Amino acid sequence: MHTLWDERYALRTDNIGSSAIRELLKLTSLPDVISFAGGLPAPDVFPIEKFKEAADIVLTEMGDRALQYGTTEGYQPLREMIAHNAAKYGIQITADNVMITSGSQQALDLLGRIFINRGDRVLVESPTYLGALQAWNAYGVKYVTIPSDDNGMQTELLDSRLRTGIKFIYVLPNFQNPTGVTLSRPRRKQLVEMADAYGVPIVEDDPYGQLRYEGDHLPPVVVLDDEMRAKEVPIYSGNVIYTSTFSKILAPGLRLAWVVAPSEVIKKLVQAKQGCDLHTSTFTQYIAYQVANDPWMKSHIHLIRKTYKERRDVMLKALEDYMPEGVQWTHPKGGLFLWMTIPKELDSQKIFTDAVEARVAFVPGGPFHPVGGGENTMRLNFSNSKPDLIVEGIKRLAKVIKSKL
Amino acid sequence: MHTLWDERYALRTDNIGSSAIRELLKLTSLPDVISFAGGLPAPDVFPIEKFKEAADIVLTEMGDRALQYGTTEGYQPLREMIAHNAAKYGIQITADNVMITSGSQQALDLLGRIFINRGDRVLVESPTYLGALQAWNAYGVKYVTIPSDDNGMQTELLDSRLRTGIKFIYVLPNFQNPTGVTLSRPRRKQLVEMADAYGVPIVEDDPYGQLRYEGDHLPPVVVLDDEMRAKEVPIYSGNVIYTSTFSKILAPGLRLAWVVAPSEVIKKLVQAKQGCDLHTSTFTQYIAYQVANDPWMKSHIHLIRKTYKERRDVMLKALEDYMPEGVQWTHPKGGLFLWMTIPKELDSQKIFTDAVEARVAFVPGGPFHPVGGGENTMRLNFSNSKPDLIVEGIKRLAKVIKSKL
Repeated sequence: MHTLWDERYALRTDNIGSSAIRELLKLTSLPDVISFAGGLPAPDVFPIEKFKEAADIVLTEMGDRALQYGTTEGYQPLREMIAHNAAKYGIQITADNVMITSGSQQALDLLGRIFINRGDRVLVESPTYLGALQAWNAYGVKYVTIPSDDNGMQTELLDSRLRTGIKFIYVLPNFQNPTGVTLSRPRRKQLVEMADAYGVPIVEDDPYGQLRYEGDHLPPVVVLDDEMRAKEVPIYSGNVIYTSTFSKILAPGLRLAWVVAPSEVIKKLVQAKQGCDLHTSTFTQYIAYQVANDPWMKSHIHLIRKTYKERRDVMLKALEDYMPEGVQWTHPKGGLFLWMTIPKELDSQKIFTDAVEARVAFVPGGPFHPVGGGENTMRLNFSNSKPDLIVEGIKRLAKVIKSKL
Repeated sequence: MHTLWDERYALRTDNIGSSAIRELLKLTSLPDVISFAGGLPAPDVFPIEKFKEAADIVLTEMGDRALQYGTTEGYQPLREMIAHNAAKYGIQITADNVMITSGSQQALDLLGRIFINRGDRVLVESPTYLGALQAWNAYGVKYVTIPSDDNGMQTELLDSRLRTGIKFIYVLPNFQNPTGVTLSRPRRKQLVEMADAYGVPIVEDDPYGQLRYEGDHLPPVVVLDDEMRAKEVPIYSGNVIYTSTFSKILAPGLRLAWVVAPSEVIKKLVQAKQGCDLHTSTFTQYIAYQVANDPWMKSHIHLIRKTYKERRDVMLKALEDYMPEGVQWTHPKGGLFLWMTIPKELDSQKIFTDAVEARVAFVPGGPFHPVGGGENTMRLNFSNSKPDLIVEGIKRLAKVIKSKL
C-alpha cells in the first residue's frame, strides 16, 4: 500500500534493524522445532505462585499507587533494594545511582542516546551482544572490536585499541552473550587499569551474574575499578556504569532492569527516558519489589542455578556424544548460552536452513560480529528446553552438520 | 562527583529535557498542596477488583507465556481486539496495522525516531502536548505552529503553514492537552482536505476520545481522511497515523498504548522498538486484554465519564464563583484539562511560586508553546482531585491571582 509516509523515513532508519536475523528467527517458532535459538529462561522456574501472592498484596494494599503514573527514575523502594543488594557485591551506591529501565535493552538504548554522537567509536568484544549493536546502530556508532577467547576479552590487546579514541568500552564479563565465556580475574584487573590509563569509561553489562554453576564468584569490573582507586574503603567512583536485570532471576515478561551510574549520568538518563516512555510500569515494579524483597529469593536463585546447570551439563554431554570431529564449543560456567565453532569450510547461516528442516534451531554467529567474521560459529541456548529435548536437538543438529562435512 | 563520563555526553542531550518544568512540578507533590498540575486519572476509578481477577486468571492459566519474552509488535489477541474496536469507530484495520507501545509517549518517540531528521519541520498546534515536544526535541525537530481557539486548530491558516515544507502534522482533536478544546467537524474536514492537497501526512493523538461528557461523538480525523478517499466503503488509507492509550480508561501504571499505522510503517516502528526496549511487558498486556475484553468495560467507561464530568462541572462552577474579572477559561467537553488565561500583565510562572505557597498547583502555560508565548496561561487538571478539594483549590488560586491584580 502506497502512503504519504513512504518517502518520509528518517536517515537513521537505514541503521535500524537487520531484519535478516529477525526473519530467520521467526522460523524457530515453527511447531516441532527444538529451539536453541532464543535467550529464553525456562518457564518451569517462573515463580508463578509468588507472583500471584504479590499481585494480590500490591492491588489490595496499594492498588491506587501501583496503577498510577510513577516517577521516571523508578519505584523508590525498588531502587533502594537494588542499591542495598549491590553493596553485598561490593558496589557502594545509593538509590540516587540507580534508575529502573524497561528491560536492559532500554538501558543500552538510553546510554547510546545520551553518549553516542554519529561516528563515535565504541570498543566491544567480537562477538558481542546483538541487542547492544542494535541499540547503538541507531545512533550511528562505529565499532572497534577486540577478540575474546576462553578467558573473555583479550585485554592484552587493549593498548592498541584504546589509542584510537574510544568513547567507552562495552563488556559482558560473566557468561557472555553469545559465547558463554567469563572474563578472568587478571583480565578484569587489566581492563580497569588500561581503561584508567587511557581515561576511557566502561559499560559493564551483567544480566547473568547470579547464574553461576561452577567456580567462585568473581568481582564485577565496577568493584575492581573502585578498589583500584580506593585509599581505604572502596566507594563507587562512577567510571564504570553497570547494568543488570530481573529478566533472568524473576521473569523477562516484566521488562524490568536497572542501571547503576553516577548520579549526574542518572539525571541525564532520566531526562532521556522521560521522552522515551515517561516511566517503566509502576505495576510491574511494585510486584517485582514484593517478590524480590522476599528472603525466599535466595532459594529461588538456587533452583534456577540447579535447573540450568543440569541443562548445561546435558547439552555439553550430548555435544560430546554426537558432534563430529572438528566441531568445538565453549564450556560456560554460568548463564544461558554456549558457543559452537564448526569447521571453517561450513557456513552456519546455510546450515540453519537445513537445521530448521530437521526441526532444530540455533542463532548463526555472524551477526554477533559487528565488523564481520564468525561465519562458522553459532550460539546455542541451553536454559529453555527440557533435558530430553536438548539431547534430541543436539542429535538432530549433529546429523545436519555431519551431512555437510 | 567528577567522572570520566562528564565530557562525553552526546550533542543531542542539549535538546533533551527542559528540567525547569520538571523541577517545578516536584513542588506540586508537597504535602497539603492541592494539585491541578498532573495529568493523573482519579485512582478512585481504577478497577482494582477487575485487575485482581485478571492477574489471577493470567497467572493461573497462562503464567508461562505471560511472564516470558514476547513479540515486539505486542500480544496478538490485544492487537486484534484493538483492531476490532477501531472498526466500531470507522477505522477499518487489521492487527497488522497495530503495534502496542509502552505508553503513548513511546509511540511519539518511535514516530520521531523513524521520521524526523535534524531540521525537519513538524506542524503542531500552539499550545500542544508537552510530551510530544519532549520526544521530538531529541531528534532536532523544528516546529511550525498554528494557533487554536475554542474550536481547536485554526485550519483556515493551514494553507500558509503547509507551503513551508512540513514532514507531518500533529494534532490532538479531542479535548486537547493542554487546552481541553475539541476540533470542530468542519475543521476536521478542512484539515484532511488541506493535508491531502499538500500531500502531508497526519499524526492523530487521541488519548481521551472515549471521555466525552457532553455533545456528540465526532469522527476521528483518520476516519474523515478515509471517507474522503473512499469510492464505496472507507478503508484505512494509511495517511493518518492514529495513537491512543489504556492509561485513561484502565490505568496509566500499566504503561500500555497503541499506534495504528500502515503495515509498512508498523514494520519500521517494530524495528525501532526492538532496539529501544525489545517489547512491552507481556504481563501487563495479558492483564489489560483480560480486563478490556470484558463487556463490563462499557459500564466502567460510563463510570469514568460520570466521575470526571462531575469534577469538571465543579471546577467550572468554582471558577465562575471565585475567579476575578479578566480571567478566562475553556469549557472542555471531555478529557482531563481546562486552560486558563489570566490578564496579560501577569506571568503564570511567577504566580506558580505564590500558588504553591498557598498550597495549590497548576502547570504554567509557557512550556506548551514550542516557539514561545502563553506566559499568561495555565493548565488545570480536574480529574485527579475530589470535588471538595477542587473547590478549595480554585478558591486558593483565585486569591493568589487577585492579590496580583
